[in-house]
Amino acid sequence: MGIINKDFFLTNETAKKLYHDFAENLPIIDYHCHLVPKMIAEDYRFEDAYDLFLGGDHYKWRQMRTFGIDEEYITGNKDRYEKWVGFCRVMPYLIGNPIYHWTALELKRYFDIDEPLSEKNAKEVWDKCNELLKRPDFSAQNLIKKSNVEVICTTDDPADDLKYHIQLREQGFSTKVLPTFRPDKLVNIEKGEFLGYIEANGIDSYEKACSWMAERIALFNDNGCRLSDHALEYVPFAVGDAKAVFDKKVKGEELTLEEIDTFKTAMLKVCAVEYTKLGWTMQLHIGALRNNNSRMFEKLGADTGFDSINDLCIAEKLSAFMNYLDTDDILPKTILYTLNPKDNYVLGTMLGNFQKGPDVSKIQFGSGWWFNDNASGMVAQMDALANLGNLGKFVGMLTDSRSFVSYPRHEYFRRILCNMIGGWVEDGLYPKDFDALKNIVEGVCYRNAKDYFKF
Amino acid sequence: MGIINKDFFLTNETAKKLYHDFAENLPIIDYHCHLVPKMIAEDYRFEDAYDLFLGGDHYKWRQMRTFGIDEEYITGNKDRYEKWVGFCRVMPYLIGNPIYHWTALELKRYFDIDEPLSEKNAKEVWDKCNELLKRPDFSAQNLIKKSNVEVICTTDDPADDLKYHIQLREQGFSTKVLPTFRPDKLVNIEKGEFLGYIEANGIDSYEKACSWMAERIALFNDNGCRLSDHALEYVPFAVGDAKAVFDKKVKGEELTLEEIDTFKTAMLKVCAVEYTKLGWTMQLHIGALRNNNSRMFEKLGADTGFDSINDLCIAEKLSAFMNYLDTDDILPKTILYTLNPKDNYVLGTMLGNFQKGPDVSKIQFGSGWWFNDNASGMVAQMDALANLGNLGKFVGMLTDSRSFVSYPRHEYFRRILCNMIGGWVEDGLYPKDFDALKNIVEGVCYRNAKDYFKF
Amino acid sequence: MGIINKDFFLTNETAKKLYHDFAENLPIIDYHCHLVPKMIAEDYRFEDAYDLFLGGDHYKWRQMRTFGIDEEYITGNKDRYEKWVGFCRVMPYLIGNPIYHWTALELKRYFDIDEPLSEKNAKEVWDKCNELLKRPDFSAQNLIKKSNVEVICTTDDPADDLKYHIQLREQGFSTKVLPTFRPDKLVNIEKGEFLGYIEANGIDSYEKACSWMAERIALFNDNGCRLSDHALEYVPFAVGDAKAVFDKKVKGEELTLEEIDTFKTAMLKVCAVEYTKLGWTMQLHIGALRNNNSRMFEKLGADTGFDSINDLCIAEKLSAFMNYLDTDDILPKTILYTLNPKDNYVLGTMLGNFQKGPDVSKIQFGSGWWFNDNASGMVAQMDALANLGNLGKFVGMLTDSRSFVSYPRHEYFRRILCNMIGGWVEDGLYPKDFDALKNIVEGVCYRNAKDYFKF
Repeated sequence: MGIINKDFFLTNETAKKLYHDFAENLPIIDYHCHLVPKMIAEDYRFEDAYDLFLGGDHYKWRQMRTFGIDEEYITGNKDRYEKWVGFCRVMPYLIGNPIYHWTALELKRYFDIDEPLSEKNAKEVWDKCNELLKRPDFSAQNLIKKSNVEVICTTDDPADDLKYHIQLREQGFSTKVLPTFRPDKLVNIEKGEFLGYIEANGIDSYEKACSWMAERIALFNDNGCRLSDHALEYVPFAVGDAKAVFDKKVKGEELTLEEIDTFKTAMLKVCAVEYTKLGWTMQLHIGALRNNNSRMFEKLGADTGFDSINDLCIAEKLSAFMNYLDTDDILPKTILYTLNPKDNYVLGTMLGNFQKGPDVSKIQFGSGWWFNDNASGMVAQMDALANLGNLGKFVGMLTDSRSFVSYPRHEYFRRILCNMIGGWVEDGLYPKDFDALKNIVEGVCYRNAKDYFKF
Repeated sequence: MGIINKDFFLTNETAKKLYHDFAENLPIIDYHCHLVPKMIAEDYRFEDAYDLFLGGDHYKWRQMRTFGIDEEYITGNKDRYEKWVGFCRVMPYLIGNPIYHWTALELKRYFDIDEPLSEKNAKEVWDKCNELLKRPDFSAQNLIKKSNVEVICTTDDPADDLKYHIQLREQGFSTKVLPTFRPDKLVNIEKGEFLGYIEANGIDSYEKACSWMAERIALFNDNGCRLSDHALEYVPFAVGDAKAVFDKKVKGEELTLEEIDTFKTAMLKVCAVEYTKLGWTMQLHIGALRNNNSRMFEKLGADTGFDSINDLCIAEKLSAFMNYLDTDDILPKTILYTLNPKDNYVLGTMLGNFQKGPDVSKIQFGSGWWFNDNASGMVAQMDALANLGNLGKFVGMLTDSRSFVSYPRHEYFRRILCNMIGGWVEDGLYPKDFDALKNIVEGVCYRNAKDYFKF
Repeated sequence: MGIINKDFFLTNETAKKLYHDFAENLPIIDYHCHLVPKMIAEDYRFEDAYDLFLGGDHYKWRQMRTFGIDEEYITGNKDRYEKWVGFCRVMPYLIGNPIYHWTALELKRYFDIDEPLSEKNAKEVWDKCNELLKRPDFSAQNLIKKSNVEVICTTDDPADDLKYHIQLREQGFSTKVLPTFRPDKLVNIEKGEFLGYIEANGIDSYEKACSWMAERIALFNDNGCRLSDHALEYVPFAVGDAKAVFDKKVKGEELTLEEIDTFKTAMLKVCAVEYTKLGWTMQLHIGALRNNNSRMFEKLGADTGFDSINDLCIAEKLSAFMNYLDTDDILPKTILYTLNPKDNYVLGTMLGNFQKGPDVSKIQFGSGWWFNDNASGMVAQMDALANLGNLGKFVGMLTDSRSFVSYPRHEYFRRILCNMIGGWVEDGLYPKDFDALKNIVEGVCYRNAKDYFKF
């Protein structure tokens, strides 16, 4: 009766073979997520289904708000079970939404629950999940182990002391849990938090900002870090006196857009030099329009479900920025992500401008991100990549998630990939050569990431 | 031989069941159209097939121009039958175009004509239609009755006295014909017609503009109005001295873009306050680039087939505008329409920033509009909505039409919706649970609009 | 075992009939390409498979760079066979990429090779191709003859003396080889090469620029030219003192963007006057972002695989430019191409603003260009055109290629067109009326271009 059967998302015979023979059992490399390292290190135990499924998931909060549920029953003080029932009521309406599929996968894979979630079985599922969550094999670490995860890259502030990553290494936890360097707070000089951040970290000059950045990168590198991450509405580019901009900011003066771009470009360059030296990968997440709702931002803060997609013109500055680094031979391996699917073809062709051996697919087009992390978005991204670049050398999926049960999104991706490729084969657009296909499927699902990031 | 059979557009078994069992016989709520109230109230009789099909239809005029037909045979003085033949000659080439399908549906549903229209049967169809149009059951009101229309919302200027709406109410016409408040002429201060408009309506100050707006809204509300409509290239946002802008305009001075946005933002806010109070829905139609052809504009005026799609960056100002209203708790129920499909994902995610109970799907993503009012456009809009929001609570289709035989576009939409959903079910992406599916299909085709607009 | 069988890309029965009965054997009109006239006139003989397949093909170079191959083995001094092997190694990974299909078609159609190209058969294919390339029937002219090409339009600088076109005419070569007028170097005043170009051509004043342009157009026209071509990031529009801009440029001063647009608008107008007079077609190629990689530009120059897609807002200026010409009745037949698929709907609707009889589909939406010259891109363009304009009157495919074996791209296009249309028919969206379908298919594949360009 449930939708999660053996051949979920596999609508042709070749797809079934590709998935079951080659993709299904590969380990997971989750090279970008937002898991809290402390929760992993301390092997967090979930209190109940609310805690696991709803506690921090702003995707679901948005859906509950859309359904007209009062905020008190979403992020407010109401009873956890009542909140759970609210979410269950929404579910049947989410036809065509990834949350419908993700939830079905999570209930099936971790709790062996088949029946589609709705108000009707809300209590039954609540009880069954809560029962199982009491068991030790449902702890944070055990959920990860069950999911066959080889590497996890969390997302961390440069000021982080990485003690949980160190702890995890010392514990000998079977999954590698590595930090990712995300210096947005030191790069994004236009944000309100910039001055507090530099003060808290003893950064009192532009030179200090640069040296501090390099020092933290070195520390992260010592702790296994292989990637950085940057969130940008657009990739900035302006060359100028970044030191003067820093000083102006410290004096509390208003910066021009040009000055903001100048500072950001300079800081990103400082990063790029180090990343290149260390063989890191730089992730650029482009195009989010965040914190659109002031009323709710004041109430709940950031990352609570009030973000959306921007639509700026991004090509020219992105090109100029990458060229600027490439010219000095300090363009690191780079993954370009866009939140706006209108830019799929812009990014898909931007890659080719800066590919350079001996790295294989040095510049990558990141998998369908956030609002594109659904079947339509993934297929659009992979179709663009296949047409414009080299799909066979794609580093594939990541969860970008805050949840400990989001690993089935890799399964979701793999099924969609196999279905897409299988369809091409059945339509006669690629030979039914299972050696070649195995190589591609295993590459995209696992091996390319391993080879590319060199953990 | 014709294409309009029982299962037109239904390519899978589930789709057929969904359409025939749940969608087919539902009444129509046409919450946005451009029918002329006078024609309804006076129960207009069509002179001939030209009058009914071609007389005011700029979609078809464009196609005739594209085919190289001389303007004299389109909007000029040539014989009506000759114009009809011209249109018939174009038809066979319109493969993949909604006009092909709409025309086939219109001929089948109202005239029981199966054969595809072409030059060959131009005379035969002309004669048959004209014969039937003489019958009383082909009057404007009877065409509406035949089409099972429960509600019609026309589009009306604030200065309109609504006498035809009142007449219709007094006649006891079985279909509710309600006005929609479209104050573009008072909002769009940059247009040439602004000064004439305010003068004609005795608006001699900014204060008067505001009070007049509120008064007209009250009058419309008294006459059953539940929606407003605003046509905007982009949603403006600027806060400033709107009164000063008004005064400057009246003095005949040139306004800056910032000033124009300031005035528009202020006027839209005046509207929003009232809409919110009255529980109206605000429709924002974003992204048209109108009257591109000066030569033809001088000859024929507006809405004659010389409009197209703009491609501005719209996200930031739209967000700021909605946030501005939301902050003061005067953001009414809103439907966002885009003419540029590149913005489907921008709008689909913008919704979520401002959803708020107890309204269900308070902010709606409007159905594929105008140039997107075709199968590809509808599927793209619904796929975006399903992935990013809640398709199950979508208020669905509207005709946006000037034609009395455009109601089969609701049938067209319903078939496409059922086909899309049916395909998902058959691919195993949603359970074959016909209770849940009935609820969704009936909701999107009829009940959601009824619940949302509260006519 | 290979993918190129009788029904490649034809996945439904109607499609097979449409292709084999109507499309397959039609001659080719290749109205836009980049073949070198000298090579045709001198009936160039290819040295080896490298020379034919890789020598000037920057699409393939990009793919080799993406794969991590060292530049020495791409455009450098390494052995040709080693370069060939490098390309062969990339091939199996190019699933979903048009190069995979194009290469398979080229090997099959010209060399009767079925087996998919890979490192394994690199030597075998190399030898077989090289053997055949020694035969006289593999000369440039014979490859064209084999491909059933009726007309070729090359792309030529106004300063070109057209001697090879004249030679070819005098030789009585069975394929018409006509020049296309591409005056970018005289229009694009912002480029570094402008001053050198005007000096080389004795253009010392604005008046001279205008008269020289007109003279060259006349010369091209005398030699059979029927099209022009303009490469533009966006279509400019500004009306002002173009003479003053010219003079300022000659003095070595920096131009403003407004001045650049002023000059370009003026020069394009000079062109448009002549084009209209002569019944030429003006091609506007919009949206490329070229020469992104400075390091490689210095090494290899332009057109070496470092271009990508821009994402500017283009609608308003394009509309204003076309309106400017239309107002003076000097808007020639025009083909609008976009490199950014986000603009498909913008262009698809822009057409309709300026259609005007007696020309049939006077303003055309150009076939999927460059990065869109793949199945997804072609289908997106044709679906947009069908929905927004008149697909039945589309002038169809062109290669835009530098290669003498790229004619199977017309086959590729025809198969995709027939598959798309066949699918519509089988889904019941157009009648199974093979007279009407034949008319459409033959029109799009051959006859429309012939009627439109009037060679």
